[in-house]
Amino acid sequence: MRLILAAGTTETALVDGISAAGATPELMAHTPPGDAELLVYGEPVRSPVTPISPTGCVTPAAVTRAVREVRAFPVTTIDAGLAAPTAAPTVTLDAKPGADIRDERAVPDADGLFERARSFGASLPDDAITIGETIPGGTTTALGVLTALGERVGVSSSLPANPMEQKRSVVRDGLEASGIEAGECESAPLAAIEAVGDPVQATVAGVAAGALEAGIDVTLAGGTQQLAIAAVLRHAGVTGPLTVATTSFVAADRGEDIERAADRFDCELTVTDPGFDERDHVTMNRYCAGEVKEGVAMGGALSLVPTDDLAAVRDRFAAICDRLGVDEFLDGAEPESAPDPSVSSEGR
Amino acid sequence: MRLILAAGTTETALVDGISAAGATPELMAHTPPGDAELLVYGEPVRSPVTPISPTGCVTPAAVTRAVREVRAFPVTTIDAGLAAPTAAPTVTLDAKPGADIRDERAVPDADGLFERARSFGASLPDDAITIGETIPGGTTTALGVLTALGERVGVSSSLPANPMEQKRSVVRDGLEASGIEAGECESAPLAAIEAVGDPVQATVAGVAAGALEAGIDVTLAGGTQQLAIAAVLRHAGVTGPLTVATTSFVAADRGEDIERAADRFDCELTVTDPGFDERDHVTMNRYCAGEVKEGVAMGGALSLVPTDDLAAVRDRFAAICDRLGVDEFLDGAEPESAPDPSVSSEGR
Repeated sequence: MRLILAAGTTETALVDGISAAGATPELMAHTPPGDAELLVYGEPVRSPVTPISPTGCVTPAAVTRAVREVRAFPVTTIDAGLAAPTAAPTVTLDAKPGADIRDERAVPDADGLFERARSFGASLPDDAITIGETIPGGTTTALGVLTALGERVGVSSSLPANPMEQKRSVVRDGLEASGIEAGECESAPLAAIEAVGDPVQATVAGVAAGALEAGIDVTLAGGTQQLAIAAVLRHAGVTGPLTVATTSFVAADRGEDIERAADRFDCELTVTDPGFDERDHVTMNRYCAGEVKEGVAMGGALSLVPTDDLAAVRDRFAAICDRLGVDEFLDGAEPESAPDPSVSSEGR
Repeated sequence: MRLILAAGTTETALVDGISAAGATPELMAHTPPGDAELLVYGEPVRSPVTPISPTGCVTPAAVTRAVREVRAFPVTTIDAGLAAPTAAPTVTLDAKPGADIRDERAVPDADGLFERARSFGASLPDDAITIGETIPGGTTTALGVLTALGERVGVSSSLPANPMEQKRSVVRDGLEASGIEAGECESAPLAAIEAVGDPVQATVAGVAAGALEAGIDVTLAGGTQQLAIAAVLRHAGVTGPLTVATTSFVAADRGEDIERAADRFDCELTVTDPGFDERDHVTMNRYCAGEVKEGVAMGGALSLVPTDDLAAVRDRFAAICDRLGVDEFLDGAEPESAPDPSVSSEGR
């Protein structure tokens, strides 16, 4: 099993209050590069900060890394439109950062990017791949694509309180700017991505399509965003077996909605629970309270861990939090206060 | 231990008869991308061919990969000036392909590239790194830099008969085109690279310098080219401990010369022997006859293998040759005949 991480950006993330994938909007561009470095090296290397939410809750990349330290598997990161440099090695598919979906075109090269990703996916020598993503603002672009496809599926959020009305408003503006109606892209999913999607969607959908062609087992690791990609694949006529692996935090937030969506797009659904409620650990408590929820293949990585090994994953996660220094400002910090980004680059 | 592979190109490789790192000059640009893919995935993925010499002898990347299949270690590939796309994930340091050293400047951005590589090397979280290279034409640029530094050290070759006089002639032309005398860059090693070197040298020297600053153990994996990089580091005033790990094939070719060079640049020298003479295998025989000799960190990777595990490495190497189909046209082929490059992309 190879874990593939598509890391990219969309300017949609800069809409105020829409994403928690970064301590501040200015730092959001560093979240995907930092996530990739954390996964590859165990800590940020070139990235100036450890990716954390505005309330100081650490990126799910730390959970995926903890799994990797317990159960080794190869990781391959794809540059799916990065806007800041990373020290993580990345596969280049000539992806560009995505524009704000309220611009006329969010991903001008969606077709070409999908095709290059498809070719890469089809050439992989693996029996099975698990594909994750890191892109701040990705649930809003997921809502955009689902809406353009005419699919009535809700979306989750990395914030404890989902700013759903704001996302709907951004998507409405995005469709209007692109001159398309909800549902108009039913038979043209790449046009939906081009209009109101993001480059990670084109990349993940392409890799998955290519891998399925080559007979490789494909797991889409993530929640809402991966269901949107499953929708893109089904609307594109891709019929191979797909599994969506997500966390119990997404499932708790979305309830039966996520099962219905998985059924609708003919996906197996795997829900994994890291058992963070078994520990009194400040960051684990935050996850249990519904912060962050999923990302960077967290649910898919956890699905590789037998229940007996989950305690080891929690131990590694706690050790990674210590190493990154991300808990020190969580203790007693007000959720509203922006953490000091310099803290997380200590010791490097 | 992390294995870092710097993969790049120099147009110097296109001088007729100077390099064996590719079946034909046209295919040479695909050798570094293919080497990286072989190391990462176990076979070429995006690269159109398996890297082989004009006589059909397979790249040393296959040996390094065989070691990796026996003793797992993380691999990080750096784009040190690739001229063709690769499916291998690469760290981007904004390196450009090197020009022909007979042009005025071979690596116009040598200083900047060294600095970016140094910063990357200094930020690595590892205790020890082994740095290898893949760049067709690299022994000629090594001779260029050594000459510009005023060091009288011979160089090896990937060809059974080293076209030494031709290399010297190219280097003479290169120095003349750059307007510098042999030895003139004694105190300015990056100027030597800029004039008559290649981007892989600037990258490897930079990573090594940064890693040494950060207290990381550094092994330069390779023969002649790594000794040239050691010379660059010493001429730059870098004094930390350096090990050069190379193969018995380079040592057999260079004799005491290589020990003297290692002494001169204050390097520990490790010579590793994969024991290919213990098997009657067509490609192993070719290596024993002095073809290819070293590259893609082969000697450094082998230095990680206890003697008892070498038989397993030979088994894996034979299996990789089978998988790549590289032996089928070696059997009974005339060394002079160019192999059919399509053979090596079978089954993909």
